[in-house]
Amino acid sequence: MTDITYSYAHLRDFTLSVFKRIGCPLDEAELATEVLLNADLRGIDSHGIARLSGYVRLWDAKRVNAKPNVRIVHESPSTAVVDGDSGLGLVVAPKAMEIAIQKAKVAGTGWVAVKNSNHFGIAGHHAMMALQQDMIGISMTNASPLVAPTFSVERLLGTNPIAVAIPADKQPPFVADFATTTAANGKLEILQRKNLDAPLGWVQKKNGDPSTNANEVKDGGALIPLGSDREHGSHKGFCLGAWVDIFSAVLSGANYGPWVPPFVAFLNPPDDPVGSGIGHFLGAMRIDAFRPADDFKKHMDNWITRFRSAKPVDGQEKVIIPGDPEREISEQRLKDGIPLNPKVVEDLKALGSKLEVSF
Amino acid sequence: MTDITYSYAHLRDFTLSVFKRIGCPLDEAELATEVLLNADLRGIDSHGIARLSGYVRLWDAKRVNAKPNVRIVHESPSTAVVDGDSGLGLVVAPKAMEIAIQKAKVAGTGWVAVKNSNHFGIAGHHAMMALQQDMIGISMTNASPLVAPTFSVERLLGTNPIAVAIPADKQPPFVADFATTTAANGKLEILQRKNLDAPLGWVQKKNGDPSTNANEVKDGGALIPLGSDREHGSHKGFCLGAWVDIFSAVLSGANYGPWVPPFVAFLNPPDDPVGSGIGHFLGAMRIDAFRPADDFKKHMDNWITRFRSAKPVDGQEKVIIPGDPEREISEQRLKDGIPLNPKVVEDLKALGSKLEVSF
Repeated sequence: MTDITYSYAHLRDFTLSVFKRIGCPLDEAELATEVLLNADLRGIDSHGIARLSGYVRLWDAKRVNAKPNVRIVHESPSTAVVDGDSGLGLVVAPKAMEIAIQKAKVAGTGWVAVKNSNHFGIAGHHAMMALQQDMIGISMTNASPLVAPTFSVERLLGTNPIAVAIPADKQPPFVADFATTTAANGKLEILQRKNLDAPLGWVQKKNGDPSTNANEVKDGGALIPLGSDREHGSHKGFCLGAWVDIFSAVLSGANYGPWVPPFVAFLNPPDDPVGSGIGHFLGAMRIDAFRPADDFKKHMDNWITRFRSAKPVDGQEKVIIPGDPEREISEQRLKDGIPLNPKVVEDLKALGSKLEVSF
Repeated sequence: MTDITYSYAHLRDFTLSVFKRIGCPLDEAELATEVLLNADLRGIDSHGIARLSGYVRLWDAKRVNAKPNVRIVHESPSTAVVDGDSGLGLVVAPKAMEIAIQKAKVAGTGWVAVKNSNHFGIAGHHAMMALQQDMIGISMTNASPLVAPTFSVERLLGTNPIAVAIPADKQPPFVADFATTTAANGKLEILQRKNLDAPLGWVQKKNGDPSTNANEVKDGGALIPLGSDREHGSHKGFCLGAWVDIFSAVLSGANYGPWVPPFVAFLNPPDDPVGSGIGHFLGAMRIDAFRPADDFKKHMDNWITRFRSAKPVDGQEKVIIPGDPEREISEQRLKDGIPLNPKVVEDLKALGSKLEVSF
């Protein structure tokens, strides 16, 4: 089955209608739409419109509040804890990032831990909000437990991504956005659809043995922290995932580790929660709280140019600056449209029928 | 050749005398000694007293200033840039971390970028300074270029470590401290001394081919970012190392990427510097700028206990909480002494003779 391509405008109008239909106020429906579809634009198809019906099912299950009262519950000059009131993470996270940016304007940096939220789309979107303010943006979130710590068979961590967005001058910004596992779950979904094996080191069996079965996680297995095995540093990937979990949830008062509620609505959240919803951690650092922004951005241009011109291994691709591939895909998809898997199209059409919104 | 064991007090007295001998004021000699030997206590032998003669050679070469004027050159309520005045990183970094802690007391968080510094010992030491204040500590540094970005043969990054220290209540703190490469250089040095091969994925040949030669970096090869190869996420390790480089050096005005001066005194720094010395980035976050410290620390105890009790893979070790192994070694070495490689002992004796300090 080949993909079917839709214009960004078409998918945006549909998504906006869906969010309005479940009761989101217009401005928040627009925000959620922009965040969600930025994943499709940037080529991170697993986190975009393919998840729309999943968000609606969480709303059906009364686990998403379409009219949240997103508010600061604790703060200092450079910090805040935000209660997302069970809102869409797609709405809560950019609002929290806006608070971080406002704090940074006054205090130099702003750091916001968020509780009582839901899945927030791609981490990179929120980090990139800082760029237009000549700030560095940082974004992290915890997620449903699918990852086993090194030496364990238990799934205790999510794929817990980290994004860091750093502005440059004439060069495009540096935007790193990556799961703290060897491979993101979306990479496995691609293999599953194509009936292909996964490389060794991406997943492990239920008993902890190595596996190349791309469906292993559905069979009780687990994703593996970045590094793949102890000898290649998977304990470092575990440190990264744990760091994200603690900053996102222990600092904020959200659920952490195995207590993080699952994204899928057919699985109930644990009945012994240790906090509220899932957690995020967002940061903004004003460049000129460190040095004049122009100086910094000129040196970033130099950094980027030097690394991009690094001598490649014979027959290999050139060195890629974090953010390059996503920016290129984004430009192309804005022009040529966004290809969707036929199963996703079918799912969106069913969603549209249910909500009486035409796709 | 078997290791020779010395008491902590013996090594401390010798190191203190050496730092005083090269002209460090007493309080700074004490600080440098404490930081340097904390590496030996924590089992990170590559970063401890084994490097003492290397620091002295940098002083001989007039690249280390024994009486630095460490000062803030730019600041905001939650940030500062510190000029290390070519001081020992062992002195400059803890002073900068102290500034971060003071900022956090007032602003909730404190973030200090440092330029014009030198090698700062183990990253974990500086991050852990925050713990006794009920703060989270973060510490990063860039370092001599030995690491090739994914797809490249050029050495453009250091092993650029990250440390994160998080306090708990009854449980010991969470202390992650790791190089952003698959394996730290110290791990390779151990293999070199034993004439053993390295696992595939730790180093690459000069032309970028995979290698198991533990001496590959001496032959023009490179260390590999965490992840080992593109398929297993080495581009994520590259993102991490790049992040550390930019925060440590582009924010502060230090040298970055291939311009970072080498630690070894027999190699000259590049003659086209883009900044001053090497750079660090240090952060402190007051827990109660987010939530009451007691609440947080009780949840950290719960986090640590749950992860430590995770079901291990059959026949595998238990799950290790970041900081556990180093704390155990530290307690043991304080009691039983610190084992030194005979070559290190020989080197220290030669250093002692040269400086007229008895070992």
